[in-house]
Amino acid sequence: MEIFVYRNGASAVEENFSAADLPEILADKKNVVWVDLLGETDEQLAEIKSILLDVFKFHPLTVEDTLETRNQPKVEAYPDYLYCIVHGSRPEETSSTNFLTKELDGYLGDNYVVTFHDERFKSVKMVKQQIRNSTFSCRRGAAYLLHQILDQMVDLYMPVVDDFDNSINEFEDRIFAMKKGNNEILEEIMDLRRSVTRLKRISSRQLDVLYRISHGEFPQIPENVLPFYRDVHDHLQRISDLSENYRDLVASLFDIHFSVVNNKTNDIIKFLTIFSAIWLPLSFIAGVYGMNFENMPELKTRLGYFVVLGIMAVVTATLLLYFWRKGWIFEKKDKESDK
Amino acid sequence: MEIFVYRNGASAVEENFSAADLPEILADKKNVVWVDLLGETDEQLAEIKSILLDVFKFHPLTVEDTLETRNQPKVEAYPDYLYCIVHGSRPEETSSTNFLTKELDGYLGDNYVVTFHDERFKSVKMVKQQIRNSTFSCRRGAAYLLHQILDQMVDLYMPVVDDFDNSINEFEDRIFAMKKGNNEILEEIMDLRRSVTRLKRISSRQLDVLYRISHGEFPQIPENVLPFYRDVHDHLQRISDLSENYRDLVASLFDIHFSVVNNKTNDIIKFLTIFSAIWLPLSFIAGVYGMNFENMPELKTRLGYFVVLGIMAVVTATLLLYFWRKGWIFEKKDKESDK
Amino acid sequence: MEIFVYRNGASAVEENFSAADLPEILADKKNVVWVDLLGETDEQLAEIKSILLDVFKFHPLTVEDTLETRNQPKVEAYPDYLYCIVHGSRPEETSSTNFLTKELDGYLGDNYVVTFHDERFKSVKMVKQQIRNSTFSCRRGAAYLLHQILDQMVDLYMPVVDDFDNSINEFEDRIFAMKKGNNEILEEIMDLRRSVTRLKRISSRQLDVLYRISHGEFPQIPENVLPFYRDVHDHLQRISDLSENYRDLVASLFDIHFSVVNNKTNDIIKFLTIFSAIWLPLSFIAGVYGMNFENMPELKTRLGYFVVLGIMAVVTATLLLYFWRKGWIFEKKDKESDK
Amino acid sequence: MEIFVYRNGASAVEENFSAADLPEILADKKNVVWVDLLGETDEQLAEIKSILLDVFKFHPLTVEDTLETRNQPKVEAYPDYLYCIVHGSRPEETSSTNFLTKELDGYLGDNYVVTFHDERFKSVKMVKQQIRNSTFSCRRGAAYLLHQILDQMVDLYMPVVDDFDNSINEFEDRIFAMKKGNNEILEEIMDLRRSVTRLKRISSRQLDVLYRISHGEFPQIPENVLPFYRDVHDHLQRISDLSENYRDLVASLFDIHFSVVNNKTNDIIKFLTIFSAIWLPLSFIAGVYGMNFENMPELKTRLGYFVVLGIMAVVTATLLLYFWRKGWIFEKKDKESDK
Amino acid sequence: MEIFVYRNGASAVEENFSAADLPEILADKKNVVWVDLLGETDEQLAEIKSILLDVFKFHPLTVEDTLETRNQPKVEAYPDYLYCIVHGSRPEETSSTNFLTKELDGYLGDNYVVTFHDERFKSVKMVKQQIRNSTFSCRRGAAYLLHQILDQMVDLYMPVVDDFDNSINEFEDRIFAMKKGNNEILEEIMDLRRSVTRLKRISSRQLDVLYRISHGEFPQIPENVLPFYRDVHDHLQRISDLSENYRDLVASLFDIHFSVVNNKTNDIIKFLTIFSAIWLPLSFIAGVYGMNFENMPELKTRLGYFVVLGIMAVVTATLLLYFWRKGWIFEKKDKESDK
Repeated sequence: MEIFVYRNGASAVEENFSAADLPEILADKKNVVWVDLLGETDEQLAEIKSILLDVFKFHPLTVEDTLETRNQPKVEAYPDYLYCIVHGSRPEETSSTNFLTKELDGYLGDNYVVTFHDERFKSVKMVKQQIRNSTFSCRRGAAYLLHQILDQMVDLYMPVVDDFDNSINEFEDRIFAMKKGNNEILEEIMDLRRSVTRLKRISSRQLDVLYRISHGEFPQIPENVLPFYRDVHDHLQRISDLSENYRDLVASLFDIHFSVVNNKTNDIIKFLTIFSAIWLPLSFIAGVYGMNFENMPELKTRLGYFVVLGIMAVVTATLLLYFWRKGWIFEKKDKESDK
Repeated sequence: MEIFVYRNGASAVEENFSAADLPEILADKKNVVWVDLLGETDEQLAEIKSILLDVFKFHPLTVEDTLETRNQPKVEAYPDYLYCIVHGSRPEETSSTNFLTKELDGYLGDNYVVTFHDERFKSVKMVKQQIRNSTFSCRRGAAYLLHQILDQMVDLYMPVVDDFDNSINEFEDRIFAMKKGNNEILEEIMDLRRSVTRLKRISSRQLDVLYRISHGEFPQIPENVLPFYRDVHDHLQRISDLSENYRDLVASLFDIHFSVVNNKTNDIIKFLTIFSAIWLPLSFIAGVYGMNFENMPELKTRLGYFVVLGIMAVVTATLLLYFWRKGWIFEKKDKESDK
Repeated sequence: MEIFVYRNGASAVEENFSAADLPEILADKKNVVWVDLLGETDEQLAEIKSILLDVFKFHPLTVEDTLETRNQPKVEAYPDYLYCIVHGSRPEETSSTNFLTKELDGYLGDNYVVTFHDERFKSVKMVKQQIRNSTFSCRRGAAYLLHQILDQMVDLYMPVVDDFDNSINEFEDRIFAMKKGNNEILEEIMDLRRSVTRLKRISSRQLDVLYRISHGEFPQIPENVLPFYRDVHDHLQRISDLSENYRDLVASLFDIHFSVVNNKTNDIIKFLTIFSAIWLPLSFIAGVYGMNFENMPELKTRLGYFVVLGIMAVVTATLLLYFWRKGWIFEKKDKESDK
Repeated sequence: MEIFVYRNGASAVEENFSAADLPEILADKKNVVWVDLLGETDEQLAEIKSILLDVFKFHPLTVEDTLETRNQPKVEAYPDYLYCIVHGSRPEETSSTNFLTKELDGYLGDNYVVTFHDERFKSVKMVKQQIRNSTFSCRRGAAYLLHQILDQMVDLYMPVVDDFDNSINEFEDRIFAMKKGNNEILEEIMDLRRSVTRLKRISSRQLDVLYRISHGEFPQIPENVLPFYRDVHDHLQRISDLSENYRDLVASLFDIHFSVVNNKTNDIIKFLTIFSAIWLPLSFIAGVYGMNFENMPELKTRLGYFVVLGIMAVVTATLLLYFWRKGWIFEKKDKESDK
Repeated sequence: MEIFVYRNGASAVEENFSAADLPEILADKKNVVWVDLLGETDEQLAEIKSILLDVFKFHPLTVEDTLETRNQPKVEAYPDYLYCIVHGSRPEETSSTNFLTKELDGYLGDNYVVTFHDERFKSVKMVKQQIRNSTFSCRRGAAYLLHQILDQMVDLYMPVVDDFDNSINEFEDRIFAMKKGNNEILEEIMDLRRSVTRLKRISSRQLDVLYRISHGEFPQIPENVLPFYRDVHDHLQRISDLSENYRDLVASLFDIHFSVVNNKTNDIIKFLTIFSAIWLPLSFIAGVYGMNFENMPELKTRLGYFVVLGIMAVVTATLLLYFWRKGWIFEKKDKESDK
């Protein structure tokens, strides 16, 4: 648990308070207080619960939601405070084929922000750093402070989202290269699809939350802070739009994979056909002169053998010409040079 | 039929009432009454019908809906009561390829809750247990009591919904393993698709119901109970979102199945082609020297036979080299090692 | 043309009126009048037109719509009456691959219902039977009488809708059986798709109509009859939801058909490959010893022939073992036993 | 340019006015005036422009839109007049694989209708004929006159729309027949898809226009004319719904084409497999007895040759029986008889 | 930075002002001022920032957005001005397989327009030219001036959008031609898909912006300028509708590619089958008479050899006839003539 207090007009935020100091600090409406709760052990969670219930008197249901994980992004207004659940990206732990998010629970009161998260949240860390350096954000009040956290959080989505773009490109290249491990590509495309689906779901819920926050629905957000939330909303809009695009593009990766395999099968069958078409007639000719009829005049001629070899050469040449004119042989060559 | 009565301030709920006691009990507006109706035989149904019509004076249409099955989730407001139909999951009887639900009909009046269901409803059972242990829920009034039932019911969806996730993963693995019974997999994916479709339909209708209940449309739900219904709504929202995702993912199972079969066909044809490409020319060479021309100089040389065997070996080696450079042979090896 | 008149308080409806009696009967606002018009010949249609225009003074446009067919379901309010077009199912004449509907035009005034249809409408017939048996429906007024017709009509959709479900199941079975007539199945699936599309279109338009009627938009429907219309709306909602599901499932029938054919092609090619892979090398060996070289030492050994036969047996066994380990032979066996 | 003037109470419309007469005629608010402008040359367009701007004082933007083509259907209200762009079908020039529309620009004032179109518009021609025969439409005012034009125009869509239905059926038949020119069918289906897409786009925009006109948004349309516009809206609704259906069905034409080609490939490969499976073993047997081993006892027996021929017959019969039991041979026969 | 000032009633716009002149010029509310900012170096951007913040006193957030790139189209109202981000096409740099846009940031105040863009914007250039030639646009005020820029910008989308249409047609032709480089076509179709997706996204966001601007939401746009913005909105609507269509059509390019490859594979396999079906039986016959049985009566007949050759001819003819009747040979011929 970390507590940051900005006393009106002070030149720096104060830290190192304990839970016991909170009631007094909160009572002074001029203070801007940020309580960042972090806990994983049962003991820590119990302490956090008591703070939320007893000090802040939050609704038991929101406290329950706070301590749970697996919630959807949402925002709820209570007479004295606003409660929101948002999801941050986890750039270090996730890849585009395994997109994961983590929850941040936030409460916004007149003069305080309470945040809770299970693990170290990069955006929270960045805002802490920032308020230690400058009181600028605090001077603008609690609503602006929360905005800062959300803004950083949404910005941290961008590298993950760009990673999706790269992934789709890379998959495309891999499909066209058609190196070994075809089925593995399919498995990974399916993972990518799952990730994009998840990104789309999270970002669309999150967009709802920020739409409601940024369009003046809640009195906790002062008029002059609204444009800042609208800004976060716009960034999120972009992420949501992109995730919609990615979904389309990932779906077409299956189509492409399919078509590439089909093209390849076509090439192989063409190869087989050309091969068979050349050797089968030659074998037949050899077979004919392998027959044991007593009266086969050709067998006795002096040059018969060489004439037959010549005929075989002519047949081969004719067939090759035929396939060349049909475009099968050249096309095959081109295909290979593609690789 | 089970009747639970919580008299204001009492330390425990009373049970063991009969239908005849109801008018009197209901008349005292301070009581919180829960009438849980359960019946399957015609006789039981007739009795239930008379209670609903005569004691509670519910609208004949809602009573008719109550006794029917095959209804969609819905909620309707009448001047004195709220009528809702919701569907609970049936975790014991259903699998992800055969998702089934069962109906619960609920009436909510000022001081009573009436529930009707055909079979033992797990969530109803759990709430009964709970109110026998503690009067907490009853003290908060009838609307809260109904909320408890819905909350448990929605929570019981989660294992079923998670099961879908596992199923999709498992099907993916089975498709890639491509063991025998290919068509069987297709049949089961189709069943899964049906189930997901059903889940989506039920959860989206149910979401409508809870949206309307939880957003203050009905005066039967007191202001202070609304957050609890919103909580149920949020859980259901998650289920509904997931069912939408699952639909996408199940659709791509067909794509994957298709691509895996295609990859396999490609491998088999490649095998056939390589095989034919090697044996056909060898057979041709043997055929040539099987011809019976009298004048075939090679036949008379002492080492002719061995030279021809050598040529055959060279041809084979050349072709293998060719396929190796084309990447066909190595790729094939890799594929096999995948399995 | 059949006219039913329920005089307030009477114990039975009266019939056998002619068009000439209508003005007088309608003038008494306490009567409940149902005029059921049925006609196909030009003469009948002309008479019906004059009744609608002259007796009831309906808007010329609605009268025109009434006499036409090929209308969409709709509802329109006029100061004195409500005009609606609905579509009933035709269970006797339609199958799931050829879903057809027929129009019913209905007018609802303060004390009268006018219905028009081209052919015998089963639901209309059933309501006639009902009001001959009991004046219950008539006592509740004209709006209730119209509700009865719509209710029966929507209920008669259910067998048709269930038939779709059966059809989809049956098609699935036929696809997996893959008996002869593959293309015929495709033709029928296409017909099914058309039918489902039609069902979806009709039911969604009809839902609009009933939504508007049942949500109090029109003063012609008294408050106390609204719940009955809402009930019809709910039933229709179920049909509309199901038709949406069916659309999804029919689309996946194509996917399944496709995959099943693909699986089969895969099996056939596997068979061809195994066959070729076994006979080609054997033929080559035979070819080698069919060569006519003078110096082929093996040919002169006493057991050469039998050794070569032995080698052929070993080659065959090795290849069979190879295919068995690759899973091709067993898989093939399993496939066949599937059928 | 044609000008039709109906003076209140007159028994026929007057024609043969010139642009110079317009101000005077329009000044008498009891007249109903229809100015139909038609022009293609620059000179004509300049004259039309000056009439629209100077005589009618229309907004420069609408005049600009009027003279352009390539506009979307739309409707705009100005204080004194209503401006709408609609698209008529071109039944003579379009087919279902090349669906085209042409623009009609309409202005509706208190007592006048102005229409502009590039080419002869069939519906405009029909309404001209009609008002020459009867003053009925004119007596009802300008708004009714415009309705007549729109009504005819929408009705003229029906043959085109029905043509789509026929086309889809015809394509289905052609795909199943699978006569030569497979790729041509695909090209035409793509054209059909384009057309349906265009129909859908135009009809949905047009529906917006008529929805707004027919729901009382514009004061230029008197209350009593609204039902007539609603009628046009309903017809258009039907067209729009159908175009949505067609889109679905055209998409499934690709699926069907695909499946039919696949079925055919399957049949061909089956044929190849059966053929190979029969001749390969026979050739092998012949090959064995073509070997030149000195010690091959069978060769010296008197009936050896005939026994081997017999064995070949048995092998062939066994294989045929095998394929027959597998269902490959009969199925193949059936397929052929399909054609 | 270029500054254009139109002093009320002047006959030409004045140029060549510096940033320092702005406060004075803006103070006179009768002037219409356009400040076009263009900068890429850090220094220029710093200067622009100071102008936006200090001279115009715009909200820091909008200034930040202005200097960034990668924004979505949007519009925001502030008490004194309107801020919008729009995207122009880049006809010179983009092709249909690589569609790119560039940002234009615009501020609209009572008497000024401020625009900012990174690169030379063609539409801005065109409007500059226009106001140098005529004060018409300036006389109508700042809102009309901004409209002119947006109008030109949207018009410049049209060639790009038409290019998509051509591209889809061209791809269709290339797919049917099926010249070499099949996989390259797929890569380009994927690029096209990306571009269409991007066009759709940008145009739909942009449509939102123009809808809001053109429907009177913002007081900065005077009533009499609204129709001009509605005009831009209509043009954009057309682009947005077309991009939706293109998305459909591009998706079907995959289907077509797929079907064409399938058709070709079918043709190749047919060729292989016919070839095998002819040579295999002939080889078998030759093989039979290559057997070395001592007692093969045919071998000793004088014409045996020629009879067998005759039989081979008959077998070939029979098979050709069979394939001809099956339609395989003719169909193959037709296919080839297609190319």
